[in-house]
Amino acid sequence: MTMKLFYTPASHFTRKCTVTIKELGLEARVEIVPTKWPHAWVTETVPYRSDFLDATPIARIPALVTEDGLKLTDSSTICEYLNDELGSYKLCPARGHERWRILSLVSIATSGIMEAQVMRIAELRRKRPDSKQPQEFSSSFVQKMKERQERCFSVLEQRHEEFSGPADLGQIAVGCACATSDFRFPDDQWRRTAPNLARWYDEFRERSSMRETEPAETPQDPDLEPTATTLEAAGTE
Amino acid sequence: MTMKLFYTPASHFTRKCTVTIKELGLEARVEIVPTKWPHAWVTETVPYRSDFLDATPIARIPALVTEDGLKLTDSSTICEYLNDELGSYKLCPARGHERWRILSLVSIATSGIMEAQVMRIAELRRKRPDSKQPQEFSSSFVQKMKERQERCFSVLEQRHEEFSGPADLGQIAVGCACATSDFRFPDDQWRRTAPNLARWYDEFRERSSMRETEPAETPQDPDLEPTATTLEAAGTE
Repeated sequence: MTMKLFYTPASHFTRKCTVTIKELGLEARVEIVPTKWPHAWVTETVPYRSDFLDATPIARIPALVTEDGLKLTDSSTICEYLNDELGSYKLCPARGHERWRILSLVSIATSGIMEAQVMRIAELRRKRPDSKQPQEFSSSFVQKMKERQERCFSVLEQRHEEFSGPADLGQIAVGCACATSDFRFPDDQWRRTAPNLARWYDEFRERSSMRETEPAETPQDPDLEPTATTLEAAGTE
Repeated sequence: MTMKLFYTPASHFTRKCTVTIKELGLEARVEIVPTKWPHAWVTETVPYRSDFLDATPIARIPALVTEDGLKLTDSSTICEYLNDELGSYKLCPARGHERWRILSLVSIATSGIMEAQVMRIAELRRKRPDSKQPQEFSSSFVQKMKERQERCFSVLEQRHEEFSGPADLGQIAVGCACATSDFRFPDDQWRRTAPNLARWYDEFRERSSMRETEPAETPQDPDLEPTATTLEAAGTE
């Protein structure tokens, strides 16, 4: 039995896992299970594949079902599992200052930048022409999320000297967060806030694990929602 | 130098950390630093203490500054750090199936139930009489978050036999999630969905670590926002 990773190419949370899988050489042990998302996910419970719901009651991607039947339901836990249990701690040591330094970068990238990006995308979608509730959009909330992201990039810039040496879980998470800024918010100019980080990222993104996982739009599933169009959100964790 | 934990008594995310500190007997090594939150946090960047922003660019609680200057910015990483680095793995073993089984419960409680509770509280606050943008409230989004929570409680009920034996990080996270349901959403009737889990919880909540950390409203800070009233949200991570 192989592991199953529930996936879309648009999710930066999921990309943390696919990059980690490639960096650890675990591709042959993981079946990638695509998921599709109708637009309505922003404000409604949408229909889910039963095997997906069986893997995660949260109904966000990524979700990993391990070879021994464990069900892991958030990207950071999945990456730690892959590294600690199957990857001989190649991308993060078992303990000590270095482990928590790396995981502190994962947290800023994930709970800080990626969550803020998703919340901003979800909020902006409330004002779309096809929204049933066009009044719900809050420009101040969008601004709040931009400011959160900006603060996080500023701290990563202050810590830019930590971005050297072999790939680790922190670099992977930060790299995926930088990529989403370029993919979803090209006007944000995070590179001005974090020029040294950007120089690191422009090298890091050339790794094969990153080039093989470039973000792309989530496929449409007309069976899930007759009026659905391609979902542009990376916001499904 | 002691650790610093940025805190409010209303946050279930932070309570995971304070319960973990007590279960590990680390109280003397941690300074609890209160934070105050004006109502506007839901949709705006609000003023923060500079030491808080220095600890976390995400500007959510909890945040932990360790004795050696590490800054950890989400509750699950903080609890793992306390357990792994300072707690001799008392509440979760270092590796193997049992570690990931426990962390899978942490994830369902945290990324599932607690996040859904916070998102629901934040959404409901959009329609408050004192809101500047009373049109923004989405009843379908609130329903979506209730359904996420309900699915998570259903899975925890299916797994209720795992809730036995000594306290662990999974039980702590789930116990804090159950408590918030009682505190914030007494009409939800999660106990009907999860009667066996509820029986476990009613015993678990009597532990001194839980009794000493009962949720309470976040103190008001008139200096932060002249019109602020007590923030009732546990939603500041």
